[in-house]
Amino acid sequence: MWAASVTVALLLSTNVAFAQTFKRLGGCPRLGCVFPPDQTDFLVGQYFDIRLEVHAPVNGTETANGGVPDEKFTFCVQRGKGACTDAAKFFGVKEPALEKWSFSYFEDLFAQDAGASTAVNVASKAYRGLRLTTPGTYQAKLKYYSGSETVANWIVREPAKKRKAKNVLLFIGDGMTQAMITAARLIAHKSVNGRYQSLMQMDQMDYLGHQMTHSLDSFITDSANSATSLYTGKKASVGALNVYADSSPNSFDDAKIETIAQLFRRVIGGPIGMVSTAVIADATPAALCAHTRDRNQFPQIIQEYLDGASSVNSTFNWPTSCDGPDVVFGGGAENFIAGPKSPGGADYYKVFQAKGYNVVYNNKELQKVATDKKTLGIFSKSNMAKWIDRNVYPQNLLNQKNSPTGDGTDAVDQPGLKEMTLKAIDILQTRQKKKNTGWFMMSEAASIDKMMHALDYDRALGELLELDDTIRATIAHLKKIGEYENTLIVVTADHGHGFDVYGNADTTYLAAQTDDRKKRNAIGVYENAGLSGYTVAEGSLPTNDTVVYGSEGANFPVQWNPRYAYAAGFGANPDHREGYAVNQKGPRVPATKGSTGENEVNPVDQASGFIVNGTLPVSQGQGVHSLQDVSVFANGPGGKAFRGVYNNIDIFFKIADALGLGSK
Amino acid sequence: MWAASVTVALLLSTNVAFAQTFKRLGGCPRLGCVFPPDQTDFLVGQYFDIRLEVHAPVNGTETANGGVPDEKFTFCVQRGKGACTDAAKFFGVKEPALEKWSFSYFEDLFAQDAGASTAVNVASKAYRGLRLTTPGTYQAKLKYYSGSETVANWIVREPAKKRKAKNVLLFIGDGMTQAMITAARLIAHKSVNGRYQSLMQMDQMDYLGHQMTHSLDSFITDSANSATSLYTGKKASVGALNVYADSSPNSFDDAKIETIAQLFRRVIGGPIGMVSTAVIADATPAALCAHTRDRNQFPQIIQEYLDGASSVNSTFNWPTSCDGPDVVFGGGAENFIAGPKSPGGADYYKVFQAKGYNVVYNNKELQKVATDKKTLGIFSKSNMAKWIDRNVYPQNLLNQKNSPTGDGTDAVDQPGLKEMTLKAIDILQTRQKKKNTGWFMMSEAASIDKMMHALDYDRALGELLELDDTIRATIAHLKKIGEYENTLIVVTADHGHGFDVYGNADTTYLAAQTDDRKKRNAIGVYENAGLSGYTVAEGSLPTNDTVVYGSEGANFPVQWNPRYAYAAGFGANPDHREGYAVNQKGPRVPATKGSTGENEVNPVDQASGFIVNGTLPVSQGQGVHSLQDVSVFANGPGGKAFRGVYNNIDIFFKIADALGLGSK
Repeated sequence: MWAASVTVALLLSTNVAFAQTFKRLGGCPRLGCVFPPDQTDFLVGQYFDIRLEVHAPVNGTETANGGVPDEKFTFCVQRGKGACTDAAKFFGVKEPALEKWSFSYFEDLFAQDAGASTAVNVASKAYRGLRLTTPGTYQAKLKYYSGSETVANWIVREPAKKRKAKNVLLFIGDGMTQAMITAARLIAHKSVNGRYQSLMQMDQMDYLGHQMTHSLDSFITDSANSATSLYTGKKASVGALNVYADSSPNSFDDAKIETIAQLFRRVIGGPIGMVSTAVIADATPAALCAHTRDRNQFPQIIQEYLDGASSVNSTFNWPTSCDGPDVVFGGGAENFIAGPKSPGGADYYKVFQAKGYNVVYNNKELQKVATDKKTLGIFSKSNMAKWIDRNVYPQNLLNQKNSPTGDGTDAVDQPGLKEMTLKAIDILQTRQKKKNTGWFMMSEAASIDKMMHALDYDRALGELLELDDTIRATIAHLKKIGEYENTLIVVTADHGHGFDVYGNADTTYLAAQTDDRKKRNAIGVYENAGLSGYTVAEGSLPTNDTVVYGSEGANFPVQWNPRYAYAAGFGANPDHREGYAVNQKGPRVPATKGSTGENEVNPVDQASGFIVNGTLPVSQGQGVHSLQDVSVFANGPGGKAFRGVYNNIDIFFKIADALGLGSK
Repeated sequence: MWAASVTVALLLSTNVAFAQTFKRLGGCPRLGCVFPPDQTDFLVGQYFDIRLEVHAPVNGTETANGGVPDEKFTFCVQRGKGACTDAAKFFGVKEPALEKWSFSYFEDLFAQDAGASTAVNVASKAYRGLRLTTPGTYQAKLKYYSGSETVANWIVREPAKKRKAKNVLLFIGDGMTQAMITAARLIAHKSVNGRYQSLMQMDQMDYLGHQMTHSLDSFITDSANSATSLYTGKKASVGALNVYADSSPNSFDDAKIETIAQLFRRVIGGPIGMVSTAVIADATPAALCAHTRDRNQFPQIIQEYLDGASSVNSTFNWPTSCDGPDVVFGGGAENFIAGPKSPGGADYYKVFQAKGYNVVYNNKELQKVATDKKTLGIFSKSNMAKWIDRNVYPQNLLNQKNSPTGDGTDAVDQPGLKEMTLKAIDILQTRQKKKNTGWFMMSEAASIDKMMHALDYDRALGELLELDDTIRATIAHLKKIGEYENTLIVVTADHGHGFDVYGNADTTYLAAQTDDRKKRNAIGVYENAGLSGYTVAEGSLPTNDTVVYGSEGANFPVQWNPRYAYAAGFGANPDHREGYAVNQKGPRVPATKGSTGENEVNPVDQASGFIVNGTLPVSQGQGVHSLQDVSVFANGPGGKAFRGVYNNIDIFFKIADALGLGSK
């Protein structure tokens, strides 16, 4: 009932997503669109949908056929050099019904300023729940407007013959670049005469690679479409979770793709874990199990975790699902507490309990909970607290009224990524024992990205160091339980931010100056960058430094507020102020909306700093994602395949090969 | 004669380099200094000097011993757990004479503003031309001020037993980061639905690694000290070439270290090649053969190429030299043409000819010159022309009056990095034949860095693509001459710049706006970044794109000035204007000095753009280096060792191992 009403609301909505660079539709440069598009690779037997569209722009530069889309289009598929067979026959499915709709977009910024939109009428069909079970090359051909043709070249990759890894643990440092790893190493590991005395765990992994993160239709990616690529081996569009974004009004009817988690559940029947420091319906965890063009549909995403994609759009059947991941740990209690943000307004803690889940709300309960049942752990409203706030400035946990129970108290006993991940391993390990299936888990350090968006470099690096500490502890724990040799560990990111450190800032001198141009003279570059002030107590010689944060052990800064702080930045900023001092009162808010509705310098942020005018559209109050390749680190069986330079979609195939998923 | 007069001038100079972060002396946190300092690794038999200093600050926070340095300091060296033996005895050299001098520095920016300097009196000794020929651990102990001790732990690494590579070709993309490689790929290689249809040569190398670039005494590095690390396996200070920067006034008396090129010459006796698109006395080529604390001493550096370090400071003997590299190709004719910038004012083309060199001045002569003799090719005054200017905007080569002959004409026939590198291979290959020694060459794409400094992203990426094209052509050429299987190819950088692409810019819309904040709305982020406009002719469908630049083949942009340009930037800028359009009239000058002497927005640069106020000290008119690890790509024998994450000094040891240099 609830799902149906949501669907109706969406159908009535006129909020159609605009396409990339103000073009008509991502992944469809022609008037005839085939999804999956040209250059798509499949795992043998992986489920997918096909969406076809024929466009007739009514006005604008691409006006075609008097605005009437060709309803008589044909579509055939061929394997290798075989005959091109009508798709319904090729796949052995019923011919889909013709669908029709319209959408509009702006061709460029001038058109947008003038309010001059371009209307497009569409004729479409969708084929649901298909599979290609024979490796090889395929061509899918859409013919329309008597003579036009859109060809999609597909490859079903030859699968690995043998399963190498029993378990797979995929760590995602959201937004994490090599420049951030370098900066985290600088502040957390002591260096003597240019040589580190200890290293990041990532530095010590056995296999190193790089992955390219571009979207299907934009060279910049977001966490939804990049996670889609990592988990399905398919390129997608910004905001899309495991679907090819079509132009229809309904964000749940787009062509879907089966994910690595769904494959692990369907093919191997083993337990799945989903851990994140973000709202648990956020893109990176969501992409394990959910299918929607719009990553912001949090309630439906939670519903999909339990009941699959067909539960939010019952007009067709999607044959594969996560079927309730065995571990779901993260934030975002607002999507579980009965109310406007929960699925259908229901108490979703109860819904999970009714499906057999243990439910825990804080670290104490997490540590105590039995490992035999599926477990839901929701530890705060919104995103979880940051490592710095939990460990260095715990007063920032107060007065948040973010208890996951919804009782209006503060979520002061939140676990970190390490605590969640280690407990998740124990639960998955117990739950796989009966059939010895092994397990699959994704564990995300989500707030590397979230804090980089906020230009809160220190908090972002704290999250990165927590990720590294989690990997270190995970390796030790896997060794202890005898699963290390069986476990493929992959550490990577989904995209970058253009962050880098370029010197130091004498924060005392900077604060003492009253003129913005003089404040800039506090920056030391080249030889004046000097040494890291974070690894030694202020004023002590390198040999005299002492403690680190109690329970965390080494691998974190000795102090976060040295006089000589690192100076860092992005090429892409909102208007803001830079003072380079740690934000001791909580996560940074660099820009706020002024009276005009445009983002302006937040007057209370980094108050002793100097103003940096932005390079981003004034609609952006935060930093944005960037282009650069991100690093991949791997250990364990199947890990060798992660060496070298490749596309983000290849991560899916490498994991699938390690698990032997295509050989079944 | 000339050398002596330079030395005198330096002794009279009061221009003493200030130490890092306004500290007393880099690499010397205590009052007693040992160079090579703690944490130094040596190749077996590698020559080095030792410099000891005992400091007595007269005033300031470290005031000691009434400003009188301890002249009775002692210094001993021990191997393993052996007895600590007086150094002169340990090395079998004469006890050096005591040296004394003074220097001053500012303790911080407040002191600098107040003109309140700190004076330091120094007692010192230097041991010259030493070697450690037994692998193992060593301790060097300086005792001073009755009870103070500075200990340096040294390791002589166990050498590889066997030579793997006959030839070594080290490519350095100066300032090149993975973000730049990603951006270069974006503009030069066609992508269909998020998947590249061709790749960079670097992407296809067999072995991938990362190196950390920090200086000895600053976490930011420059091209001098990073090249020192790459070529000697030792950390050094900003500006220093193959020496440990001491506090003495003379920049040629610092403790020296033998380089990979000198080792190749001395141990194997094979030919050496030095190729750069920069002034050939610039830091990256200079560090192959020269020794000075001050990289700006171009005339002396050129002299050292031919006659070794002792020729510029004859007060002591440095026993190893490049002895005139067999190939010297680059720019910087001003250091060869008789005049104020050449060594001793002499015509250094003639000096090279007198030493048996062929000398060429343009690409035509370069192509024709015989391969049997040593060859000097100087192709322009100053740095050489950029790829974009040679290939896309050749009118920018005119009116430069930069002919290397000094005749006041334009250097219009300059070779590119590819032409220089391929010819260098042929010369080295011929010259090694008699003794079948193999050869060593460094080939530098210098202006990736120089153009990133100028915020001229397009020119920088053009240089990067030329480097990639050079590597591709080199592999093909080595295969053709039968040396590919014998040659270790290493491609890396010396440091980064915090460059990244974060979206696109609609340059037409941007130029049409009159308000700076509205101009910023021309930036498209995430889905609006869209596709690369550089790989297809404007307006054409992806299938219709056609030609690329004539002789260069593919792997470069089809156009450099698309309407939708990439939007990129740094976190560290001088005041400047951003319009994101290619600079068609020559390299960019983002900032110029205003009436106050401070750098301000250059009023004629990117005139249609919007103003971005800087984040750097107003003394900086350019971008600066950054912290991030840089990538290493390798092919060939010994290449496997370049996988993983390591320090820049390790590059030296990996190359030395591939050449078996320590086993002789």
